[in-house]
Amino acid sequence: MTVRHSQSGSNSRSRLPKEGSGRKIRYAVVGLGYISQAALLPAFAHAGENSELAALVSGDPRKLTALGKKYDVPQTYSYEQFGDCLLHGDVDAVYIGLPNHMHRAYTEAAARAGVHVLCEKPMAVHPEDCEAMIEAARESNVKLMIAYRLHLERGNLSAIAAIRNGEIGEPRIFRSAFTQQVPAGNIRLNAEDGGGPLYDLGVYCINAARYLFRAEPDEVFCYNAAGKDRRFEDVAEMSSAVMRFPNDRLAVFTCSFGAADCDTYEVIGTKGVLKMDPAYAMSGSIKCEITIAGKTRKTTYRKRDQFAAELVYFSDCILNDKQPEPGGAEGLADVRIIAALRQSAADAKPVAVPAEQIPKRPSLVQKIQKPATEEPELVRAAAPSR
Amino acid sequence: MTVRHSQSGSNSRSRLPKEGSGRKIRYAVVGLGYISQAALLPAFAHAGENSELAALVSGDPRKLTALGKKYDVPQTYSYEQFGDCLLHGDVDAVYIGLPNHMHRAYTEAAARAGVHVLCEKPMAVHPEDCEAMIEAARESNVKLMIAYRLHLERGNLSAIAAIRNGEIGEPRIFRSAFTQQVPAGNIRLNAEDGGGPLYDLGVYCINAARYLFRAEPDEVFCYNAAGKDRRFEDVAEMSSAVMRFPNDRLAVFTCSFGAADCDTYEVIGTKGVLKMDPAYAMSGSIKCEITIAGKTRKTTYRKRDQFAAELVYFSDCILNDKQPEPGGAEGLADVRIIAALRQSAADAKPVAVPAEQIPKRPSLVQKIQKPATEEPELVRAAAPSR
Repeated sequence: MTVRHSQSGSNSRSRLPKEGSGRKIRYAVVGLGYISQAALLPAFAHAGENSELAALVSGDPRKLTALGKKYDVPQTYSYEQFGDCLLHGDVDAVYIGLPNHMHRAYTEAAARAGVHVLCEKPMAVHPEDCEAMIEAARESNVKLMIAYRLHLERGNLSAIAAIRNGEIGEPRIFRSAFTQQVPAGNIRLNAEDGGGPLYDLGVYCINAARYLFRAEPDEVFCYNAAGKDRRFEDVAEMSSAVMRFPNDRLAVFTCSFGAADCDTYEVIGTKGVLKMDPAYAMSGSIKCEITIAGKTRKTTYRKRDQFAAELVYFSDCILNDKQPEPGGAEGLADVRIIAALRQSAADAKPVAVPAEQIPKRPSLVQKIQKPATEEPELVRAAAPSR
Repeated sequence: MTVRHSQSGSNSRSRLPKEGSGRKIRYAVVGLGYISQAALLPAFAHAGENSELAALVSGDPRKLTALGKKYDVPQTYSYEQFGDCLLHGDVDAVYIGLPNHMHRAYTEAAARAGVHVLCEKPMAVHPEDCEAMIEAARESNVKLMIAYRLHLERGNLSAIAAIRNGEIGEPRIFRSAFTQQVPAGNIRLNAEDGGGPLYDLGVYCINAARYLFRAEPDEVFCYNAAGKDRRFEDVAEMSSAVMRFPNDRLAVFTCSFGAADCDTYEVIGTKGVLKMDPAYAMSGSIKCEITIAGKTRKTTYRKRDQFAAELVYFSDCILNDKQPEPGGAEGLADVRIIAALRQSAADAKPVAVPAEQIPKRPSLVQKIQKPATEEPELVRAAAPSR
């Protein structure tokens, strides 16, 4: 699809708020589905130090009316008016919470208008989409961040630190399961929208393997499967994948839209085991167990507002001209791997993954902790899991 | 290798002890490595109802002397004297606790002499070995059981029952890790002896996937990997496999000789998750957690003598002319899958597994519980794990 917008030269410069200690990045939230309503909109309450909600963009006028009122946002736009929002909406940045196949066009449009982009993961459906998004941001000199909320989350960053500190010896094996029951009718069950469990759940497992091993897989294999449930006529019910990393480390994961809740990973090292369960949670505690020589140390990282952390971090990157980690290269790396896994499943053979240059990997210094919020009542939206 | 033994016609009939209520099966224990010393020999103390230790066979005279004295077994034989043991040793059955590549020859020799065989898993190195063993037992009309101790163990049988009862809905995903550090010099690190983690650890994961799904995989994929550790010049350090089962169920597992202890499986169903951790333990409790809709029920199955159970069960099969479950077909099924996994790793592609007819699968009625024993001091043997 293409996004209609007024002329905006490709040489336009990115906007920056006026100088001064009170500068805040003004966001348009684009797409008012579950994640925007449940997590992103409430997050502005704890991101006020440098971020403010300035506009809403949605294809549903009733959502615009209800949420505009609820959050006191006078500027609301339809998708067709997105170009106007970018040019005349007094916004510095957009949060893209749209279906996966819309990420590219909206990111490109925003970048061309000189508006910074915080885009949900997966970055896009195909690697070439990601490349175009990176190029659009580069050309217009805007910041592009992919919304990997766990890159700012203390539990996962502490797991990274523990492994880097050698607590479990050399990490050799990564294994993960991220499964849930997605109800019939959910957009994640539509293939043309970049649906399927690899895009929405597998991306967490792939990303975790990469940030824990701090490396890129060189080859992957994947089985897709779908039982007789009619929800899975369009997309796979589940995927099980094996990824081979440098130094002959192995990562396996299973993601599913048709199984009970499971949200866990383990890194098995030469000396010990690090286990996270829940590992990827956005609305609950994250729990870590490190077992060495039969002794287990348990740590609970209680629920935080991971989305306020994203807003504060991205606004800081804009205000202080820093490249966000996770940026476009991080998003592209995962989408390349998803593409390789899909090809593997289709061709029934292992597929090599092109080497990716990752400028920076997440580490504990990125930790940002904001108080948890309660999920508000949803307006014409539903949770992706039963 | 071939086993030297006196002439024994291929038509010889199997031996059965004299009639009477006090009949006991007299065992020769063949191979006095770790598993025989740590588990099998002590197990006779709780198998006295129908089993007795009658002879020892080993290549190490010092083990024969020390263990013959310790267990008051006057009949001891070298490997070269195995034929004499079978013909003149007053034994009804043998327990084969030898390196994997010796299972076939010793099983065939025993069967031809009309002696029943309880053989350690994996049944043999190659499927054709297993087929020859099955044929030898059939021709001589002797019982052949493969020592899958968990087929009589309450925790695993209860997991099977819970899944069959639909407690977690339809089982869709199996995932397992069985890893340990095998010290340099251990026989499991020699390729020519049927070493490597698939044979000794993977066989548990494969077998569990099969008894929990109650089905046979139709296709498998495997990566082998080995880091720079010099222990793994001959055999893989680890294997990660994906197995596709009928009704599009998926099983993944990782087994390793070069990682910290991990011993666990999970079955993720449409309604809940069944988790065992430890799952495969022989010298500790087995623990089960069933989680449905956020509620977890935990059960601990405390340490039992799983080897006394095997002896009592196999002796009962001999005395009452019942086909053991697990029999040769069960052992062959796993070895066929291991062969397919090895081929997959070698050829870097998925490999179809020939359909297997499994006459019977384990169920809770097979449960046998015997009091735990303490591991005795080992004579010139070492645990396979650091």
